[in-house]
Amino acid sequence: MQPRLTIVTLGVDSLRRAKRFYLDGLGWPEVDQESDGIVFIQMNAMVLALYPHHGLAEDIGIESPEHLPGSNDGYTGVTLAYNTATKEETDQVLATAVDAGATLVKAAEEVFWGGYSGYFSDPDGHLWEVAFNPFTLPDDDGSFWM
Amino acid sequence: MQPRLTIVTLGVDSLRRAKRFYLDGLGWPEVDQESDGIVFIQMNAMVLALYPHHGLAEDIGIESPEHLPGSNDGYTGVTLAYNTATKEETDQVLATAVDAGATLVKAAEEVFWGGYSGYFSDPDGHLWEVAFNPFTLPDDDGSFWM
Repeated sequence: MQPRLTIVTLGVDSLRRAKRFYLDGLGWPEVDQESDGIVFIQMNAMVLALYPHHGLAEDIGIESPEHLPGSNDGYTGVTLAYNTATKEETDQVLATAVDAGATLVKAAEEVFWGGYSGYFSDPDGHLWEVAFNPFTLPDDDGSFWM
Repeated sequence: MQPRLTIVTLGVDSLRRAKRFYLDGLGWPEVDQESDGIVFIQMNAMVLALYPHHGLAEDIGIESPEHLPGSNDGYTGVTLAYNTATKEETDQVLATAVDAGATLVKAAEEVFWGGYSGYFSDPDGHLWEVAFNPFTLPDDDGSFWM
């Protein structure tokens, strides 16, 4: 069994609203393949991480004592990351997301592990971290290998 | 802004239990980089999909009328997919996951879009679809481009 993650599917309340955010807002390309009621966006190389709930919720800036999915504090149990090549790019990506309809959950700041990161939530509440990690930069084509 | 997904982070109740599942159970490689309290697993190329909650919950086999994250019916709002090259590989991967401590949520079956897929949940309840899509196979190295 390979370390393989091929699709991340985000459940959404309104596909129209989600398309407006990801395709129109962020400018990501819908895969050119006939499909009804579902949108596929071509992504690239990535990493899977395991992290305890309390640390992840703290990283997002959620201070509720209950850091479990479904506790109505905004914590979903999963985050998606967009790694950048500079601090400036981190700020730019957060701004682009907010312009596209995201909610800024945590403005980018210096973080203890030496990086610079912030969080937004998409229109359905899915959490994205936008992170500059000076020790591990994405490739020019956006792929990310640690 | 590129269509870039660099890290999927799964919040877990016990890092020890999660490592037992992903590293020992599934045999996935921990990235050789010093890190404390977090596990990084090197993954590969993948796809982001948007899909309405009700359709996604139905695909998983959750019949509750409330298909929203936090509704205590097992639906989390996010699924991760492991695409395979054959139906047999789908069954094998589901069996490997169950052997490693996953719960079989839906045994693999023929699905309306022409594929063959099933679902398991990892020890924290994160949902994985294991899918054979005869129209879109992963590359030999496990990368997946639609």
